[in-house]
Amino acid sequence: MKESIILSVNAGSSSVKVSVYSVAELGKSPPIQIAEAQVSGLTAPPASLKYVRSSSEVIIKDKAVDEKVSDQRSAFSLLLSTLVEDNSLPQVKSKSDISIICHRIVHGGDYSEPQLISAETYHHLEALNDLAPLHNANSLGIVQLCIEKLPEAKNVACFDSQFHSSIPEHIRTYPIDREIAKSNKLRKYGFHGISYSFITQEVAKVLGKRVEETNLIALHLGSGASACAIKGGKSWDTSMGLTPLAGLPGATRSGSVDPSLVFHYASDVGKLSPNSTKDLHISRAEEILNKESGWKSLTGTTDFGKIVSGAFGSDGNGGGGDEVMKLAFDLFVDRICGFIGTYYVSLRGQVDALVFAGGIGEKSFELRKAVVEQVGCLGFEIDQEKNNQKVKEVVEDLSKDESSTKKKVFVCQTDEQFEMARCCAENEEFW
Amino acid sequence: MKESIILSVNAGSSSVKVSVYSVAELGKSPPIQIAEAQVSGLTAPPASLKYVRSSSEVIIKDKAVDEKVSDQRSAFSLLLSTLVEDNSLPQVKSKSDISIICHRIVHGGDYSEPQLISAETYHHLEALNDLAPLHNANSLGIVQLCIEKLPEAKNVACFDSQFHSSIPEHIRTYPIDREIAKSNKLRKYGFHGISYSFITQEVAKVLGKRVEETNLIALHLGSGASACAIKGGKSWDTSMGLTPLAGLPGATRSGSVDPSLVFHYASDVGKLSPNSTKDLHISRAEEILNKESGWKSLTGTTDFGKIVSGAFGSDGNGGGGDEVMKLAFDLFVDRICGFIGTYYVSLRGQVDALVFAGGIGEKSFELRKAVVEQVGCLGFEIDQEKNNQKVKEVVEDLSKDESSTKKKVFVCQTDEQFEMARCCAENEEFW
Repeated sequence: MKESIILSVNAGSSSVKVSVYSVAELGKSPPIQIAEAQVSGLTAPPASLKYVRSSSEVIIKDKAVDEKVSDQRSAFSLLLSTLVEDNSLPQVKSKSDISIICHRIVHGGDYSEPQLISAETYHHLEALNDLAPLHNANSLGIVQLCIEKLPEAKNVACFDSQFHSSIPEHIRTYPIDREIAKSNKLRKYGFHGISYSFITQEVAKVLGKRVEETNLIALHLGSGASACAIKGGKSWDTSMGLTPLAGLPGATRSGSVDPSLVFHYASDVGKLSPNSTKDLHISRAEEILNKESGWKSLTGTTDFGKIVSGAFGSDGNGGGGDEVMKLAFDLFVDRICGFIGTYYVSLRGQVDALVFAGGIGEKSFELRKAVVEQVGCLGFEIDQEKNNQKVKEVVEDLSKDESSTKKKVFVCQTDEQFEMARCCAENEEFW
Repeated sequence: MKESIILSVNAGSSSVKVSVYSVAELGKSPPIQIAEAQVSGLTAPPASLKYVRSSSEVIIKDKAVDEKVSDQRSAFSLLLSTLVEDNSLPQVKSKSDISIICHRIVHGGDYSEPQLISAETYHHLEALNDLAPLHNANSLGIVQLCIEKLPEAKNVACFDSQFHSSIPEHIRTYPIDREIAKSNKLRKYGFHGISYSFITQEVAKVLGKRVEETNLIALHLGSGASACAIKGGKSWDTSMGLTPLAGLPGATRSGSVDPSLVFHYASDVGKLSPNSTKDLHISRAEEILNKESGWKSLTGTTDFGKIVSGAFGSDGNGGGGDEVMKLAFDLFVDRICGFIGTYYVSLRGQVDALVFAGGIGEKSFELRKAVVEQVGCLGFEIDQEKNNQKVKEVVEDLSKDESSTKKKVFVCQTDEQFEMARCCAENEEFW
């Protein structure tokens, strides 16, 4: 029996990433990554291409690409031809070698499972776009392209919200008009769910517990950041809401602020007055909160690494640190710890581990140190030596003393691409 | 030396309350309440008058008043004449017997202390109105009236935000454009501060601790609800923000929701689309979130007592309970416990007591029970017998076992009127 090829596609606001997996026998073997390719910098052309074979053999590194590659669709086409044209990747000799393409879609509305998408059911995805025009549009063009150009492959939509469909009603409900909430589908959905699903699976393994018995507080901290309370392997609460705006701040996102704030935000008036913002339209307001806030607005950089080195200065201990960088760092720690406290109580203290993931969660030992110190009163403690080392394994235990009764602290190299591929490889419906 | 008379004025959206205090010697003796009068129902005329002498002798009970009494100014005039015309209240024979009038003003901007207000400095208050047009307007008319009609009295503005001026920068800062935040004064201010100041003073006494050594998590739960972390007697964090909208839900207020939510809220469209709300103006958006959300929108009532009895049904244990009432109750408990967890961590676990106050906090033993049970993992435990009794003292200890190492649970009958009077009686600047 011939192996199956699965493509995991992850389209961001300025990048498209494709991971290629080989599955020896669907339903029986795990996906093995055979290649990965990415176009980034779409919003700052020329975009650049990176191509890695297996999981570490760099074939193309930051190659500037044709200026025509300017959106997610054209980026995906380039990635696809890069794969097909690589003679050293015999598993993908032509487009028809690809069995399944799974697409990460941010907002899945009421879907609690991945969905097989055909030309006939594509309009279901388009309907979701009304819920999250700012967040789903990047992926939809690629889905459409795949339906047209790769007719032999099956397309599967994996939603970032689906893991959170288990959040109980009293937590997901907003205290607003019930009729309007129902008709306009206004409730907490939550995002980063593909990542939280991966984290739950992998951390449960390391804990030696069944997924259904695993309780975690997980933090996916990247340019978009969120926290999640996981109870019995399922999402119990999360910090993002109707849209990814709510909760923690991010690179350019405000996170939760007074819902009145944006109405008092008008760049050309010196005082607050309702009249001054009467012409503020939704598109502008959402743009301010999603694209013109967060680290970038506070510090001028979207790179949290720069914020950390700015905050801690040359001596690494905050001496000589930049005041604004320190403010941004402390603010982020404060908001993260707030959610840890909230979820600790929501899980009634029955927490197996605190898990750091996402670019910042994996890389910033300073942030992990500051956060775990602040939540020390809940029984978490970090081992500084382990914490300072570069993360190598998928899940690493950073806890102070493994034999103590303290709650565990882990760092997890989350892998949304793999999680999508695993999900497709395990689910007969998508073969 | 003649006693001094202090009036504390508290104007709400539909009511005005005046408490009258006698102070034997300013700076040396505490205020003693000699009368209290209230007009309520201004938004549902005819309004009604209640007048109580001393602190319990009811003189007038729910008397319908002239329809001309339709706003805060006319209500205050009626209250003033009620006091002056009462022959059994010899301390207030005429308006000129009143030494100090202290006014509760919701939004005090950057003021960290009460302010003496004269005809010359009244415009300072008007400037604040730009920050909180929805919240300060009720009080300003009365301040103006007092300046005009009671020229011999001193007017003092006591701000609900002033107690929170101690919140550190990394907590009060929003991750938004720094220049705009500065010019438009966009930061967390916090409210209910007069109440939290009273609570801190009174609970410290009961704990036998100095105020500067007292750490509390205090909950002011009324038709407007908030939570406050008090560290060393000062506000360290609070749930309300730039305006009183943020944080916990209230009778008609949504509390914190995804800042994008209101843009997806348009009563006459069946789907979410940015275009559908392009004409949403700030006044309408703030009205939706402040006046058309909260309990009222979920359950149809603003009376939390009805929600509790609905939720717990006829057998008092939730059997036969109404589903929507239960949802509203559980939602409120979830949000309250979230802030308790957040503040517990923010105070590094150094918490002397959890304090319930405000109408709901004082009256609803069901809510206190549910909340304390959920935060049991933080070391709080309630004594059911004490909890079920009607609150009589200013501060009552509801903790399970007074001798244990458990953290304390108190209920406090907060008194904003008294706190304002005390503040004026102690501060030479206002005599």
